[in-house]
Amino acid sequence: MTRAAMDTFIKSFTIISFLTYGCVSATPVKASTPNIIIMLMDDMGWGDLGVFGQPSKETPNLDKMAAQGMLFPNFYTANPLCSPSRASLLTGRLPVRNGFYTTNGKARNAYTPQEMVGGISSDEILLPRLLKKKGYVSKIVGKWHLGHRPKFLPLEHGFDQWFGAPNCHFGPYNSSKRPNVPVYNNSEMVGRYYEEFQINRKTGESNLTQLYLQEALGFIHQQSLSSKPFFLYWAPDSTHSPVYASQRFLGRSSRGRYGDAVMEIDDSVGQILSWLSTLGIEQNTFVFFTSDNGAAVMSGPNESGSNGPFLCGKETTFEGGMREPAVAWWPGHIPGASAGGGFLSDPPGCKRTVSFQLSSLMDLFSTSLSLAGVSPPNRTLDGLDLTPVLLNSHPNNTSLTDRPIFYYRGNQLMAVRLGPYKAHYWTWSNSLEEFESGINFCPGQEVPGVTTHVQKEHTMQPLIFHLGRDPGEKYPISVLSMEYQTVLRRIAPVVKQHLDSLVPAAPQLNMCDLAAMNWAPAGCEKLGKCLKGPESLPWKCEWPH
Amino acid sequence: MTRAAMDTFIKSFTIISFLTYGCVSATPVKASTPNIIIMLMDDMGWGDLGVFGQPSKETPNLDKMAAQGMLFPNFYTANPLCSPSRASLLTGRLPVRNGFYTTNGKARNAYTPQEMVGGISSDEILLPRLLKKKGYVSKIVGKWHLGHRPKFLPLEHGFDQWFGAPNCHFGPYNSSKRPNVPVYNNSEMVGRYYEEFQINRKTGESNLTQLYLQEALGFIHQQSLSSKPFFLYWAPDSTHSPVYASQRFLGRSSRGRYGDAVMEIDDSVGQILSWLSTLGIEQNTFVFFTSDNGAAVMSGPNESGSNGPFLCGKETTFEGGMREPAVAWWPGHIPGASAGGGFLSDPPGCKRTVSFQLSSLMDLFSTSLSLAGVSPPNRTLDGLDLTPVLLNSHPNNTSLTDRPIFYYRGNQLMAVRLGPYKAHYWTWSNSLEEFESGINFCPGQEVPGVTTHVQKEHTMQPLIFHLGRDPGEKYPISVLSMEYQTVLRRIAPVVKQHLDSLVPAAPQLNMCDLAAMNWAPAGCEKLGKCLKGPESLPWKCEWPH
Repeated sequence: MTRAAMDTFIKSFTIISFLTYGCVSATPVKASTPNIIIMLMDDMGWGDLGVFGQPSKETPNLDKMAAQGMLFPNFYTANPLCSPSRASLLTGRLPVRNGFYTTNGKARNAYTPQEMVGGISSDEILLPRLLKKKGYVSKIVGKWHLGHRPKFLPLEHGFDQWFGAPNCHFGPYNSSKRPNVPVYNNSEMVGRYYEEFQINRKTGESNLTQLYLQEALGFIHQQSLSSKPFFLYWAPDSTHSPVYASQRFLGRSSRGRYGDAVMEIDDSVGQILSWLSTLGIEQNTFVFFTSDNGAAVMSGPNESGSNGPFLCGKETTFEGGMREPAVAWWPGHIPGASAGGGFLSDPPGCKRTVSFQLSSLMDLFSTSLSLAGVSPPNRTLDGLDLTPVLLNSHPNNTSLTDRPIFYYRGNQLMAVRLGPYKAHYWTWSNSLEEFESGINFCPGQEVPGVTTHVQKEHTMQPLIFHLGRDPGEKYPISVLSMEYQTVLRRIAPVVKQHLDSLVPAAPQLNMCDLAAMNWAPAGCEKLGKCLKGPESLPWKCEWPH
Repeated sequence: MTRAAMDTFIKSFTIISFLTYGCVSATPVKASTPNIIIMLMDDMGWGDLGVFGQPSKETPNLDKMAAQGMLFPNFYTANPLCSPSRASLLTGRLPVRNGFYTTNGKARNAYTPQEMVGGISSDEILLPRLLKKKGYVSKIVGKWHLGHRPKFLPLEHGFDQWFGAPNCHFGPYNSSKRPNVPVYNNSEMVGRYYEEFQINRKTGESNLTQLYLQEALGFIHQQSLSSKPFFLYWAPDSTHSPVYASQRFLGRSSRGRYGDAVMEIDDSVGQILSWLSTLGIEQNTFVFFTSDNGAAVMSGPNESGSNGPFLCGKETTFEGGMREPAVAWWPGHIPGASAGGGFLSDPPGCKRTVSFQLSSLMDLFSTSLSLAGVSPPNRTLDGLDLTPVLLNSHPNNTSLTDRPIFYYRGNQLMAVRLGPYKAHYWTWSNSLEEFESGINFCPGQEVPGVTTHVQKEHTMQPLIFHLGRDPGEKYPISVLSMEYQTVLRRIAPVVKQHLDSLVPAAPQLNMCDLAAMNWAPAGCEKLGKCLKGPESLPWKCEWPH
């Protein structure tokens, strides 16, 4: 992929013409070892993109990406919380299979706060390690969240480079009871949030997204000069509470600080895609944009996004918790929308590209392997290879059309989607105690018998919704109807087969210990930033929801 | 505007090139007496278009219209119910000013069922009558709803042609207690719903939208051959319960019959716009697409659409009742989105065109007059001329930036929006009695103290929301905050001025009479379809909500 200047010039000229016409004239084909960029947002909701209906329409670049690429309105995460979702992306497996769950409570979502002892198991094989077989150079920029103790860090699991942090940017802390979260450059820390990497909690100002953008652009440029393909996992966290944006973006959105953060991310996405074009590698780079879980609506209107028409948000297994914004972009391969065309019949090869495929964050694992020509590892995977959909070569692939989506909370299977139907076997928003203390996972929404404040079992008679006519999960289908019986007869064996064959991994997120926190990350000595933690005193972590 | 065949050919070729590049290279200018098409949907919600976030993405033509035109995410109707809303569109005035309200109950929305005695007052001057001053030929296709007694019909108020019905397509009726609603061709009925114009209530099949499409295409063609400009008011009603679609569309949507109806309308919109291009008159035809009120969510998931992230629906003065999908399209004049462009900087003249202008159905009255070069009538108008926004000539016009939106229920001012803020002076969903009988105007939604089942007065201390950060009206701003005080100080004088200067018209929708129904519409003799009604026995109509 080394590009001489002339080659680049000619190529980018060709590309601009292509984009102008907005359509593919030949049958798309798979490039060999294309670069792969996965952009994973933090707590961004389905309804946060203009193209998914955000009234403030503040994502021109993402909307354009969608117009030129493929939109997935039925794309799901693997868990309604950050750590398990991210572990699933990189392993292609449900949290219950990769160990990113807890058994300390029923149906609780666990993650990796600083006191977490565990992290990604050494038994798991992560995507960058597999891509290495075909010579990929991999970098993660941004939030890791698969464990912060040394053996869990990205460079131990196949990434070649990292710029970012292992945990959420909560804080500031005073360094005695809790250290500020470190920011790493590769295997060593280069500072800490609220110290070297400022986030002004009052104004919401931080330049971190700009740093994450520059790290991405720099890596892409380096790799465009090399002969090796790259995998970039771009995971900014500015849309996670405490929400932040750079000074240039603060106050620009009509919906406050959260919208400012979205605008900065949108701008960054535009810059990254533009950079691929400038370097002439956009036809050789597969890009996928999505989010780790639904908008954190419990954080209130200033600190969270929108789940559009869907029920509840982050932490829940309602659609608002797990349906994600998703856009694929790969000029010349994924047929883009003929957005520039008229109302007259579209030229041959041009078509609107909205894929209604039920798809999952875990599919990005299998899809990336397929794009790179790497065989999947010998273990149960929950993701599917989406290339037949993306490249439009096998639109009627049955493994894809019949695939279920499983909604877990911890290791508890809560619900299943098959086709347009979703069956809830358990429902729960959060506990009445928590709800009454002001923590509301479904603000402004209440569906009697559905958004329950006790863990309500429906296994004998699941609540079934048709998500086409009822995306908001407001109207359970009558159990007396023929439709209910027909659907249940289809879903029940799928659930049974899934549960019967399931071999859960050992839970990795059960134990907490203040000594496990980021007191003295590698590299702290050079900076004089090593802190002394307390003696080890492990306890079983508590997970309230 | 007569077009020779060669002229048409050359022109359509030019246009295709223009559309392919998707942008305007010169400063747009106003054409003299352009044709005007207003497409007014029935009970279609803000969230029913792909471009406004409908997950089933079933509106490729409307999405393309938006990509080539201008999208208005902050567009409002004048009333959350059909008749008053339509009266406001054609008079440019709030229902309280044009008489389309009742005083039989407080804060009740009245409309024109068959037993309604009243209709549009002869004191009102409707848009087509004014456009006639510049030679416009006007046609209404579809639902009228401004009164069905002879003096209220469209041809009595300035329209030259009509194909459609005066009332909702409720039924079927047995012709004894209630006649089926007539369908008119100009000034005479040509049949009745459920008789000559079939709607199969069981299957939902009806070819009415196809008839309405053909009437539109035929009128446009006729007028393209004449030297006079035209005004087409295209008002299909298939998305109003009972929802219907043609056989070709039934079962096509993933959200059931309502989605089928949307797909048929979308297809029709595409055909109409394409037809304008084929005839070479698209650069001389202003088209605006919107809806009469929010989705009728009380009708349940099979018979109603989506209000996206907004609260409640039809009949209410929450955002779901009055915020409407809205798209303007006028190639060569309204700067369209550079949807075909790349991520590199857009060519000069190309820009995304989403207008956040607070705008109203009533603005289409003033805007149409402005486009046609007709002076507004000498009376209070509530609509504003949007041409500075549409033609991008005066983006900072203060009368436009500071304009309030008034939310009425009947003649009761319920709420006001100014900038991003909305102040509710009264809140009400529907009565507890009605709610407990199963009629829910806000299914799945409940905001304590906001979606109240009593008419709750807040005039001393209005509930204020910031619709940017809180489009769902879930988080009233604290009355103790500085923000609340500042906003109230801005809104209060606007409300006071509005109410102090308001001169309500006499209410036209107070009296009902079974004798007023469509027993013997003009033309019934020729068809042998005259029915004998009862003796006149007027009563004060009851309006439950």
